[in-house]
Amino acid sequence: MRARDLAEPFPTVSLDDQALDAARLLAEHRLPGVLVIDGPGRPRAILPASQLVRMLVPGYVIEDPSLAAVIDEAHADRLCDELRGVRVRDCLPRDAPEPAIAAADDTAVEVAALMARTRSPLVAVVERPADRRGGSGSGGELLGVITASNLLHRLLGNT
Amino acid sequence: MRARDLAEPFPTVSLDDQALDAARLLAEHRLPGVLVIDGPGRPRAILPASQLVRMLVPGYVIEDPSLAAVIDEAHADRLCDELRGVRVRDCLPRDAPEPAIAAADDTAVEVAALMARTRSPLVAVVERPADRRGGSGSGGELLGVITASNLLHRLLGNT
Repeated sequence: MRARDLAEPFPTVSLDDQALDAARLLAEHRLPGVLVIDGPGRPRAILPASQLVRMLVPGYVIEDPSLAAVIDEAHADRLCDELRGVRVRDCLPRDAPEPAIAAADDTAVEVAALMARTRSPLVAVVERPADRRGGSGSGGELLGVITASNLLHRLLGNT
Repeated sequence: MRARDLAEPFPTVSLDDQALDAARLLAEHRLPGVLVIDGPGRPRAILPASQLVRMLVPGYVIEDPSLAAVIDEAHADRLCDELRGVRVRDCLPRDAPEPAIAAADDTAVEVAALMARTRSPLVAVVERPADRRGGSGSGGELLGVITASNLLHRLLGNT
């Protein structure tokens, strides 16, 4: 069982996509996060849904939560306006880690070890060009994503 | 729009449940995590699927990832045996934070602010007994969970 066999399609957005479109994607598929790719399609980050929620909340409310109660329903309905014109790259925390990346030939145990080490809820699987095999970096074609729950599903088998 | 209206059913496990059953639940529903409750049904923690994956990987492999490649497929199929007899409470990291908890009457903005502050992918909603309303702590009946993506869905509305 290799990473290429475990990889599943997963929604992606690119750095220059509109944050509002990313929010709609997450909302529609009820995803905890979305994979962010750069122009050439390399995995660059995971954008958690909670980070987009954070973008909606006025700074003064994060600092003083008691102020949240005074924002009325009409204003609440307009919170998502905060995302208008904002791009995905502007939503990523500065310290957003690179996503964990497995090579297509990695075994299930290697993927599990990578996930365990990085405490990442998902691993992106890339097919590296032959001349870069074994190398580091995130170059290569994105084949899909292995989530922790999918890996559990495959490892559990008939247990 | 109050937390009680936003709360949705969400799978839970209790501290004394078998870890293997928690893994099956996560795998079956393809969930990134499950809410852990204690005996009386109070939210106690979130158990991420990646943490269960971590439990499967031998310590020497986490320390030296190159060893993952030498574990053969037959052994990989037995990785989940590591969870036999292990209880959910044994899987929780010592520093696992308490889950974010909203009161049933909290507004959507209060929930968003809580999620933003705790950077939590989900918030548990509890109906607090009348005599504890406004108090802290996690007592009360669990009504359900609000995930970040569900909150985005509700806040986006027709945006």
